[in-house]
Amino acid sequence: MIIKSNIKRLLQYRICLGKFKELGFTRVYSYNLGNAAGVSPEQVRKDFSTYGITGNKKAGYEISSLLEILNRLFGMDKTHNIIIVGMGNMGRALANYNERFITQHVYIYAAFDMDPSKHNKTSGMPVFPLSKIPDIVSKNDITTAIISVPAIAAQEVCNLLIDVGIKGILNFAPIVLKVPDHVVINHLNLSTEIDAIIYYLNEKLDTR
Amino acid sequence: MIIKSNIKRLLQYRICLGKFKELGFTRVYSYNLGNAAGVSPEQVRKDFSTYGITGNKKAGYEISSLLEILNRLFGMDKTHNIIIVGMGNMGRALANYNERFITQHVYIYAAFDMDPSKHNKTSGMPVFPLSKIPDIVSKNDITTAIISVPAIAAQEVCNLLIDVGIKGILNFAPIVLKVPDHVVINHLNLSTEIDAIIYYLNEKLDTR
Repeated sequence: MIIKSNIKRLLQYRICLGKFKELGFTRVYSYNLGNAAGVSPEQVRKDFSTYGITGNKKAGYEISSLLEILNRLFGMDKTHNIIIVGMGNMGRALANYNERFITQHVYIYAAFDMDPSKHNKTSGMPVFPLSKIPDIVSKNDITTAIISVPAIAAQEVCNLLIDVGIKGILNFAPIVLKVPDHVVINHLNLSTEIDAIIYYLNEKLDTR
Repeated sequence: MIIKSNIKRLLQYRICLGKFKELGFTRVYSYNLGNAAGVSPEQVRKDFSTYGITGNKKAGYEISSLLEILNRLFGMDKTHNIIIVGMGNMGRALANYNERFITQHVYIYAAFDMDPSKHNKTSGMPVFPLSKIPDIVSKNDITTAIISVPAIAAQEVCNLLIDVGIKGILNFAPIVLKVPDHVVINHLNLSTEIDAIIYYLNEKLDTR
């Protein structure tokens, strides 16, 4: 199963709401939120109404209660332990995000790599051999994993993770992974992120 | 300026169209494309019609001509040189993507870091001090940059890049950067990518 785009929009709204709150605002209109998130006000209202959230035409939405609903919807009222498989440059970069993830109720519990020289239990993120995955996943009720191994190893690692009960995967390997329908997969495509920027630069070059 | 969500959807359709083509299909319906991209068929048709692309109710869209239109729209008919600022784990991981970027018409031309021990011109990606940015950017007509420095340095690096003419930025630093309206910024938020997965797992736990 892939992630529906309305879910990513709701998360984008959540980030924008956090910023508005930081700036001292207590209420917000669909127009402000759409502007900040890059969508139309109609889209904002439609997305919220899907989840039974309605605003007031004159007074807009109340930021704190909106954040509370979104936090509950995204399970942010509890901590989620996740694992990383593949401790190359990307895996190590992701492991550094742990401090930040904690505040978001996500905690990278352990990392795994095939290379014995990367295994350690003394400092920073613990790194284990792949053979430890079943044990650590089942003992710690872990259901989400990040794959950051080379493309050639990614499908095999993906199959192994699903076999031991992983239900959600964030994939950084530059390959589209096949997963059964009960597993949620999020392919993070770096080329796409660059291409989206180039679209605007390309458009500007055309119209000047 | 931030990236509108319809642009990211078009790029998602492009990836799905590539996969359909690989599988030997020549035509596709908005239903198939919506299903593969995680949006409704109506959304697919609406997004395409914004760019004057219309399908045939009975025969759907022709994949090759659709890909051609999208490639032109996203400037994929020419090569775009980009730079990376910050060669920590994330920067080095991104630099490894170069081979893949080439096929997408994006080429990482050079990287920059404040740390002299990371500078080299002999192997792999050339890494220069930040003082070389103005010269290299202007001589090679570079308009896009990736920021992968620590959060504390990111706004300063961002300002420097804009001063020398960078118009598009992909930001990996875990901070929301302020840019003038003529600059396109794409914040890649790793927490959001994980949160989107957790939404589905959370939903399943609730409904079982």
